[in-house]
Amino acid sequence: MRFSQKLEQAARKNGSLLCVGLDPDPAFMPVDHVADFNRAIIDATAAFVCAYKPNLAFYEALGETGYSVLRETLAAIPRDIPVIGDGKRGDIGNTAKAYARALFDDLGFDAVTVNPYLGGDSLEPFLERDDRGVFILCRTSNPGARDLQDLPVATDSGARPLFEAVAESARRWNNHGNVGLVAGATFPDELGRIRSLCPEMTLLVPGVGAQGGDVAAVLKNGLDASGGGLIINVSRQVLYASRGQDFAQAAAEAARRLRDEIAGEQERVLEGRVD
Amino acid sequence: MRFSQKLEQAARKNGSLLCVGLDPDPAFMPVDHVADFNRAIIDATAAFVCAYKPNLAFYEALGETGYSVLRETLAAIPRDIPVIGDGKRGDIGNTAKAYARALFDDLGFDAVTVNPYLGGDSLEPFLERDDRGVFILCRTSNPGARDLQDLPVATDSGARPLFEAVAESARRWNNHGNVGLVAGATFPDELGRIRSLCPEMTLLVPGVGAQGGDVAAVLKNGLDASGGGLIINVSRQVLYASRGQDFAQAAAEAARRLRDEIAGEQERVLEGRVD
Repeated sequence: MRFSQKLEQAARKNGSLLCVGLDPDPAFMPVDHVADFNRAIIDATAAFVCAYKPNLAFYEALGETGYSVLRETLAAIPRDIPVIGDGKRGDIGNTAKAYARALFDDLGFDAVTVNPYLGGDSLEPFLERDDRGVFILCRTSNPGARDLQDLPVATDSGARPLFEAVAESARRWNNHGNVGLVAGATFPDELGRIRSLCPEMTLLVPGVGAQGGDVAAVLKNGLDASGGGLIINVSRQVLYASRGQDFAQAAAEAARRLRDEIAGEQERVLEGRVD
Repeated sequence: MRFSQKLEQAARKNGSLLCVGLDPDPAFMPVDHVADFNRAIIDATAAFVCAYKPNLAFYEALGETGYSVLRETLAAIPRDIPVIGDGKRGDIGNTAKAYARALFDDLGFDAVTVNPYLGGDSLEPFLERDDRGVFILCRTSNPGARDLQDLPVATDSGARPLFEAVAESARRWNNHGNVGLVAGATFPDELGRIRSLCPEMTLLVPGVGAQGGDVAAVLKNGLDASGGGLIINVSRQVLYASRGQDFAQAAAEAARRLRDEIAGEQERVLEGRVD
């Protein structure tokens, strides 16, 4: 099944645009084993999400156990929920192929995040896997995003920020219909620009929760014509809703609340469109 | 010891600006175990290099054995030769910190490569480790590099390509004196521009060998005022100089030849400067 179908089915089944970021930090956990923590989080939240997104950095930081913890985590995710491997990889030729093999074939992610700085050919080993999703970094959620992503690029029709040029390039690179974009919740105007440039792409939106992004603004500016097209990722606000032994129950409540908040705003935006 | 010192000492001891890229591909090896292959390559070439550079993709592509193969590889490298972890990572805040922990503390790399697309704050967890080197991607060696890196950025003094803006930003980010830049050998004019913008930074130069970059042009355009400031990386041309049982001997010969070729061109450029 293609990533987009799997995502749509999971989103519909759970009535959710929420993705939970599985970014385990041993310092914040009330249990000894990271895989046990992740399994409990997954069991508690699987009814409230459209996807999970492990960020590879947190597994690499575990050292020699990182790989097996990641494998155990992936095995604990129900098969009908898509999983996005968040590694923001970007490299050339045969190296990019090696990353694609590692992420798609060895680990079996349904989708990945990639960095566009090295250009279209660096993304091709990911893009050519048309059953998998490829989210290209466009406008990220951190303050320093503006350093490069907002630089004014000269075009025939005047200057526009680099992230808009990336969004346009992403359309050209989307020969297999499997490209999405990363657009931070902390910059809702930029997210709206990306939506207008790429009306049919799924946007992966980090930055709600600990980073302070506003759910209402994300829905207003980011929903596509069909009323979807968004994956809203939250990590810490769910994972560490409680740092006590009730962490899983607290995570379930946080995920349910976020799902419902997102669905409520979604409904409000769609009602506004009808009026 | 700071990375720059360690690099300088190794370069002087071996009379070499050559870095060997430890990018093992099991398909091309005449031995069963990747770590054995790497150990043989390291033993054969350690007298001819100023650094080694494992690209993490090739270890991740090995799946569950990747981490231990990488550890064994790192353990086989003589302690006085610096090692650059080539992962081209780039992520935000606490995620970037997790990558820095993984690469510097767990794996113990002397330097890393990073991607600038997410901006200065995403690099800070690497930059603040002032004993380690941080090579920021600037102008890469692949054909698609031009897609983003050559886009014209409007400035007060006219348009210039994005990679030059990155080189300028790198100077601002270099508060700890540990920043270098990645500049592909396949684009010697751009490499020369980078050298003129950043006269004192070490340039990590991929693209000689299998990718077709020209050693003479790299030395001519890339050497700094002191006659150094370059790390010229070659991977496949050394690793797979022979695919038979004599692979280690062939790698030694290829590395020695490359070292000598680079040193010869270096001498020629420096003599030309005196005249």
